Amino acid sequence: MEISLKYLPGGRAAASGNMMAQSDLDLKETALKEDLKFYFMNPCEKYRARRQIPWKLALQILKILMVTTQLIFFGLSNQLVVSFKEENTIAFKHLFLKGYSGSDEDDYSCSIYTQQDAYDSIFYVINQYKQLKNISLGTLAYEHEGSGLKICKQQYKKGTMLPSNDTLNIDVSTETECIFFKPQELAGKKAELKLNSSFFNLEFYRLIQVEISFKLKGIALQTIHARELPDCYAFQNTITFNNRAHSGKIKIYFDSDTDIQECKDWHIFGSVLQKNTQYILVFDGFVILSCFSSLILCTRSIVLALRLQKRFVNFFLEKYKRHVCHADRLEFINGWYVLVIISDVMTIIGSILKMEIKAKNLTSYDVCSILLGTSTLFVWVGVIRYLGYFQTYNVLILTMQASLPKVLRFCCCAGMIYLGYTFCGWIVLGPYHEKKYQQSGFPVTDLHEFLKDHGSVGYRKEQTSMPFICCCRRQQSDDNLILIN
Amino acid sequence: MEISLKYLPGGRAAASGNMMAQSDLDLKETALKEDLKFYFMNPCEKYRARRQIPWKLALQILKILMVTTQLIFFGLSNQLVVSFKEENTIAFKHLFLKGYSGSDEDDYSCSIYTQQDAYDSIFYVINQYKQLKNISLGTLAYEHEGSGLKICKQQYKKGTMLPSNDTLNIDVSTETECIFFKPQELAGKKAELKLNSSFFNLEFYRLIQVEISFKLKGIALQTIHARELPDCYAFQNTITFNNRAHSGKIKIYFDSDTDIQECKDWHIFGSVLQKNTQYILVFDGFVILSCFSSLILCTRSIVLALRLQKRFVNFFLEKYKRHVCHADRLEFINGWYVLVIISDVMTIIGSILKMEIKAKNLTSYDVCSILLGTSTLFVWVGVIRYLGYFQTYNVLILTMQASLPKVLRFCCCAGMIYLGYTFCGWIVLGPYHEKKYQQSGFPVTDLHEFLKDHGSVGYRKEQTSMPFICCCRRQQSDDNLILIN
Amino acid sequence: MEISLKYLPGGRAAASGNMMAQSDLDLKETALKEDLKFYFMNPCEKYRARRQIPWKLALQILKILMVTTQLIFFGLSNQLVVSFKEENTIAFKHLFLKGYSGSDEDDYSCSIYTQQDAYDSIFYVINQYKQLKNISLGTLAYEHEGSGLKICKQQYKKGTMLPSNDTLNIDVSTETECIFFKPQELAGKKAELKLNSSFFNLEFYRLIQVEISFKLKGIALQTIHARELPDCYAFQNTITFNNRAHSGKIKIYFDSDTDIQECKDWHIFGSVLQKNTQYILVFDGFVILSCFSSLILCTRSIVLALRLQKRFVNFFLEKYKRHVCHADRLEFINGWYVLVIISDVMTIIGSILKMEIKAKNLTSYDVCSILLGTSTLFVWVGVIRYLGYFQTYNVLILTMQASLPKVLRFCCCAGMIYLGYTFCGWIVLGPYHEKKYQQSGFPVTDLHEFLKDHGSVGYRKEQTSMPFICCCRRQQSDDNLILIN
Amino acid sequence: MEISLKYLPGGRAAASGNMMAQSDLDLKETALKEDLKFYFMNPCEKYRARRQIPWKLALQILKILMVTTQLIFFGLSNQLVVSFKEENTIAFKHLFLKGYSGSDEDDYSCSIYTQQDAYDSIFYVINQYKQLKNISLGTLAYEHEGSGLKICKQQYKKGTMLPSNDTLNIDVSTETECIFFKPQELAGKKAELKLNSSFFNLEFYRLIQVEISFKLKGIALQTIHARELPDCYAFQNTITFNNRAHSGKIKIYFDSDTDIQECKDWHIFGSVLQKNTQYILVFDGFVILSCFSSLILCTRSIVLALRLQKRFVNFFLEKYKRHVCHADRLEFINGWYVLVIISDVMTIIGSILKMEIKAKNLTSYDVCSILLGTSTLFVWVGVIRYLGYFQTYNVLILTMQASLPKVLRFCCCAGMIYLGYTFCGWIVLGPYHEKKYQQSGFPVTDLHEFLKDHGSVGYRKEQTSMPFICCCRRQQSDDNLILIN
Repeated sequence: MEISLKYLPGGRAAASGNMMAQSDLDLKETALKEDLKFYFMNPCEKYRARRQIPWKLALQILKILMVTTQLIFFGLSNQLVVSFKEENTIAFKHLFLKGYSGSDEDDYSCSIYTQQDAYDSIFYVINQYKQLKNISLGTLAYEHEGSGLKICKQQYKKGTMLPSNDTLNIDVSTETECIFFKPQELAGKKAELKLNSSFFNLEFYRLIQVEISFKLKGIALQTIHARELPDCYAFQNTITFNNRAHSGKIKIYFDSDTDIQECKDWHIFGSVLQKNTQYILVFDGFVILSCFSSLILCTRSIVLALRLQKRFVNFFLEKYKRHVCHADRLEFINGWYVLVIISDVMTIIGSILKMEIKAKNLTSYDVCSILLGTSTLFVWVGVIRYLGYFQTYNVLILTMQASLPKVLRFCCCAGMIYLGYTFCGWIVLGPYHEKKYQQSGFPVTDLHEFLKDHGSVGYRKEQTSMPFICCCRRQQSDDNLILIN
Repeated sequence: MEISLKYLPGGRAAASGNMMAQSDLDLKETALKEDLKFYFMNPCEKYRARRQIPWKLALQILKILMVTTQLIFFGLSNQLVVSFKEENTIAFKHLFLKGYSGSDEDDYSCSIYTQQDAYDSIFYVINQYKQLKNISLGTLAYEHEGSGLKICKQQYKKGTMLPSNDTLNIDVSTETECIFFKPQELAGKKAELKLNSSFFNLEFYRLIQVEISFKLKGIALQTIHARELPDCYAFQNTITFNNRAHSGKIKIYFDSDTDIQECKDWHIFGSVLQKNTQYILVFDGFVILSCFSSLILCTRSIVLALRLQKRFVNFFLEKYKRHVCHADRLEFINGWYVLVIISDVMTIIGSILKMEIKAKNLTSYDVCSILLGTSTLFVWVGVIRYLGYFQTYNVLILTMQASLPKVLRFCCCAGMIYLGYTFCGWIVLGPYHEKKYQQSGFPVTDLHEFLKDHGSVGYRKEQTSMPFICCCRRQQSDDNLILIN
Repeated sequence: MEISLKYLPGGRAAASGNMMAQSDLDLKETALKEDLKFYFMNPCEKYRARRQIPWKLALQILKILMVTTQLIFFGLSNQLVVSFKEENTIAFKHLFLKGYSGSDEDDYSCSIYTQQDAYDSIFYVINQYKQLKNISLGTLAYEHEGSGLKICKQQYKKGTMLPSNDTLNIDVSTETECIFFKPQELAGKKAELKLNSSFFNLEFYRLIQVEISFKLKGIALQTIHARELPDCYAFQNTITFNNRAHSGKIKIYFDSDTDIQECKDWHIFGSVLQKNTQYILVFDGFVILSCFSSLILCTRSIVLALRLQKRFVNFFLEKYKRHVCHADRLEFINGWYVLVIISDVMTIIGSILKMEIKAKNLTSYDVCSILLGTSTLFVWVGVIRYLGYFQTYNVLILTMQASLPKVLRFCCCAGMIYLGYTFCGWIVLGPYHEKKYQQSGFPVTDLHEFLKDHGSVGYRKEQTSMPFICCCRRQQSDDNLILIN
Repeated sequence: MEISLKYLPGGRAAASGNMMAQSDLDLKETALKEDLKFYFMNPCEKYRARRQIPWKLALQILKILMVTTQLIFFGLSNQLVVSFKEENTIAFKHLFLKGYSGSDEDDYSCSIYTQQDAYDSIFYVINQYKQLKNISLGTLAYEHEGSGLKICKQQYKKGTMLPSNDTLNIDVSTETECIFFKPQELAGKKAELKLNSSFFNLEFYRLIQVEISFKLKGIALQTIHARELPDCYAFQNTITFNNRAHSGKIKIYFDSDTDIQECKDWHIFGSVLQKNTQYILVFDGFVILSCFSSLILCTRSIVLALRLQKRFVNFFLEKYKRHVCHADRLEFINGWYVLVIISDVMTIIGSILKMEIKAKNLTSYDVCSILLGTSTLFVWVGVIRYLGYFQTYNVLILTMQASLPKVLRFCCCAGMIYLGYTFCGWIVLGPYHEKKYQQSGFPVTDLHEFLKDHGSVGYRKEQTSMPFICCCRRQQSDDNLILIN
């Protein structure tokens, strides 16, 4: 950071021209030198020099604590919601899928291989749906207005297929037939009639898929323990019997779309739920406040820096009739401040989202997670900056900075080979041993490591010889000496 | 690449002999120097020097895009075929193997340990085959002409064995008995008679294996989604009850040979399948075209290079009465061009194969995959060459080039120890803990890594001292100075 | 270690002042020099110089043997106790949990999804408890005074919940109902009445958890093989049906608290159990004795070193009017002795605990394990010190010492990024894919390794340039030369 | 290898003393110089110098081929035997263990938790043994003379145990009761009486173990495929119900001791089995022959080397009145020859054992495997020597040689910490999480890698400074110059 000082030659270096301008310039130079020196100081030195209390530093430390606390609270309440959804999905799979083993195969839940199994699985769903109230352990209910259970089968239009003759006579356009069961009529005669209808005579050779969908409602009482209001959930479950491949194996997919709604009509006795929520809202407010002040302080710093830069550029032009090169201009913009500003903006937006979620106006947990998570990452990474003030750590950080472009360049080079290799591996090995290839991936990593090991010899060698100094800086290295003297 | 210029001494170096020949030689030398300089330029420099537009470079970039696109399309359609085959095999295993767990043990599908299980498993296959139409979810049928189900048992000729006396009386020559069930007669009386015949009284002490084989036909409708014609498949299934070891454990193997045939007689309504296929054929044509032009351009470059090389060799002989050494001659042949030519030839052959496969004339997916995959790998690796034009990358690439022979040499040395170690490990540990040894392989990798770690100390040390320069080049290093001056 | 000698200049360095004091100082200096030289010698040199037999060294070697032997004996007897507890827990799970698969899911033992399963599981526990004597293979019995089986259900107070209307009417305060079954009355009519009571009509929508707890007693005869007295165990088992989440999945936890008690009343014939225990107690005594003498010898060494340090400081102050810097003072305190003292104290406390455990007065196996284990680790690490006496090893050890602060500094820096990364990863990826994230953890390690690889470039570079020498030492380096001359 | 030449000064170096002796010495010196030069040549140079054909080299290459071929044949035949044994054991487990899952738990096959299961499992074994002929798929039979099935129960002598009172009254001495079932009487009334006897009223509280043992005979027909004689096997099976821990869990161990015997009385028709065996015996003979000649050649080389060494030592003593140091004497003994000799001796013994095994006189497969495997490892490692003749490889090999002592020294140092760490880890973490600790072992490897990474900095640094040259060699380095001149 002290490098920029090099542009300012000592007084002895220039002693000609008219005295007035010269002395004016000298005064300007001295002032500028002072300001530059101060600008590139670290908080400790600033405090020693002008007794300036490091507000920004204190604020950052406060922010780390607050942001991390907020993140942990949000993460915990988020985890409750996610685990409730997941456990419900698992419970649904156990209730509605016949012979579900407890864990999914690949991306589908289970698979069947005989016609009998197909019919059994479909009727099992209907039956379990009928008895739901007496079976389920959860606080579930059919949807009120309720379209009930909807079974749709999609198939190619009538055709004939005689594989033994290699003869095929099919209409490629598909048709979709549906049948509905209302919860209230499921036990009655009407349902029986429907079950015996021709709809359930599946012609597997032209069947594409059977889709059973129904909607259930539930209440998550779990949040009461955390002294928050309970949420009302709507589960849109879809069970798909996928015969698209016509390979003799029907894959059964279970899909549960969960929708969080505010409970319309709730009466809760015996405890004070509301207060806790309010405390959290107040805390969120404080986080926003601290981030906002940090944002302002950092923006101010950057504005001041840009003004200083302008002064420096002008002075330089005036005195040496030369433009300051681009790299040296960039030196004035403190990357850490930019990081802090980005992080602050993200925290503020994230906190507002979080408050809206708490107030049950929004359910965009994902966006909020990403915003808060990323901002916390940035805040913690920002700590490294303060470590850089200690000399021994600084070496470490500068080295990491210096090695970055080489690492990227190497990655770029290896990436090319890797891409080619991946395409080649995918087509040659891939489709035949799909799973193994993905799991082990051993040839890929082998090559990758090989490159890393032996390529690294390369950039270790150049370590000393390669000039990492910006070109325009080297030209001016004589002035450098003048200034230091 | 500039090294070869060293052979050409500056004009001042030789100023004797008759003036005519000398000036002629001087002219020749100047022209040759010019040509050599131009030849070893990279595209950017060439453009700056003679405004030569880098067609080859543009073509290579176009080729990367086209070849990769083609590969992805081929890979996707290939994956459909492979997954259809695999899913059918899994479905067959579930249908025909009694007590199949869903995943294979070792290389066989399942194993049985009692006589009752053996009989049950065999009759289960016959029974499932009989009911196939009512069980299977796939579009399967018995083969038309149909040899039906064929059960063969292979056994040693009559003998007696009394293990309790250590007495053995056996005829080593084997006999094979077979029985056939036609699909149409399976339900009738004839089949029942056959099932009660003495054929099914297995004498396990002399039984070697029972083999049940049958042929099924199927149609893959899946391709219709991709707007391609459906394929007709013939599955030759073989279930083998292997008692070869007489160890009290019969291993059941399931083997399904799949044959893709053109459907003889198809009528498909409601969609335009053909067009899509035609688009792909046109695209393949373009790929072939671009590869062909790249092939011609690169061949031309190599021919020109060889001509230049000849001129240079002659000139050198004329002026210095000395032969140019082998290594310097090789400098003229650009390895990258050779790579491009190989890649182009492979792409062209691969694309033609692909078109034939699309037109259902060929089914050699494997050969085509290997050709297209390898050529794509080469094309992507070729990108590294263009990275070599940037100076910073060049260091990386040269280092990788330099370290290659050392790495190979080390591998050769370690390979010897590894081979000995493998043989020793196999015989000492192998047969007793076969599976564990193969899975973990920990002693092998330990040694391997040990060697890598400590052996690498070796070649890191020599890094500076070892002369990588070809011997003949060093001898002439004085001329080098002359030329540069 | 010889560095400290530098403070003592040769006679020529100071030749002024009154002669008496000078010669007195000279005498003092010579004596101090001698003592310092001797102090920083290693045992071999000490033996050569003054024929001082290395008692401490011999004692340390004896201690390694004794401490390790003691540890192994303790570990083996400990393992018996632990495995007995674990096997009992597994046996209980198989006996009392219906459908227990043999291994736990996550942190709970098994899970149920239907109301029928819930009732079945509860009655299964009661039934198995009733028949325990006829079922269990272990030497178990109901507790004598015996509260028997206690079933408690915790639920929200009466309310209504209509998920289909999003209507909720609940009293958040919980109520707990309990029912008891005495072992002796379980077969009678009273138990039947209880089983039919309304207690077992669970209203799952407001049920929080059902807890079944009972106490069993057992005797571990296993220790008889080791010729030790058998222990009497009390198992407090608790089976919890956790419906806290109301997600349709009840998790069943099995918890077994084991309490080891002295058997009140035992009569064992046919063998001599006591003696063996006594031998072990005697051995423990010897260990304590040897540790105690080692402790005294090391404390004495440190006291002597501190006295020498004081003499040196005084002499230095007298002669050079300068204070010895802190780092050089620390040089006198031998870190290894401190390690030995800590290790000795731990061994003594650990051994006393072990004797108390053997005498069945204490059961704090954990504390004792940690004490004995850590002390053994220290004793073995202490061996490195003796390796340091060999010159070739010394290089190794010094390097390890030198690199430690750098490694720690790097860890600190990486830790910051890692912390931020962990928080970010937890919130963004965590809750959605909880298990996968924890199992694979691949992004975390990737970053970690990246840092390790490229950060290490940093501290490898500074290796030569960074001054590891304490500042005050460098100032005095001239004196150093004088002394050596 | 050229270093030893240094002892021989050039003719100019010594030109005084009486001329006769001098010229005699000169002649001697010239001859010795010649012989030494020739001795330290590699085969290529020897061939060039004296046209000596490299018989030893040719023989080694032949030996690699032969020994490897022999090893592979032996490995394959060995694998047949081992897999037959293993498959039989698995089959027995499926036949005799009730509820065997197909894979062992830990070191036992399965475990039971209730009294009913214990009785069922025992009677299941008896029942399966009775029906063996009708169940088993293998060629098994009861042993002829036949002790039949033997059931033994071991238990503490009568006592009382009241865990509820913590009261214990037991006789530690054990008693063993046995019962026998002859195969021929198993179906009769006598067996039924026995089954109802009081023997089968197990008192689990004092039961230590139940052991069921029986002997079966079988014939391995598999070898017939390899045109070898079939083997007769005797399986001594033992099923142990281990209740030693009295923890409520009985572990069932299955143990099968296999004994290979020559079949007493065999008549095999239809094929020529013997011949193949003879071919293999002849091949083994050739291997022995080639190893023997290699052994003789190498021994001769070593004897010649020792003679040359003696001549050199004498000459040196005569001329310089100085003893040759030990390290230089060792230079004469070629380590590779020693390796070849060891390998040859092992191959010869191994081959003889193999021939005996083939002739069914011996069954010590293990010893033979180790001998042949190790010798093959040595032969392959020996190839490295020939690679050392190429200059570029030599650098590699020398580096590996040089780094070995450092690596060992480091291992020694790390081993100390590792040992302490292991003891500490075992006692603190071990018994409580026994399996996890052994499987992952992550803390151990972490430390280990940490040491490797940072310790390695140590010995990389000294690389240049540490003198690897033997001390006595350095003293004489002046003579060295003389000789070279």
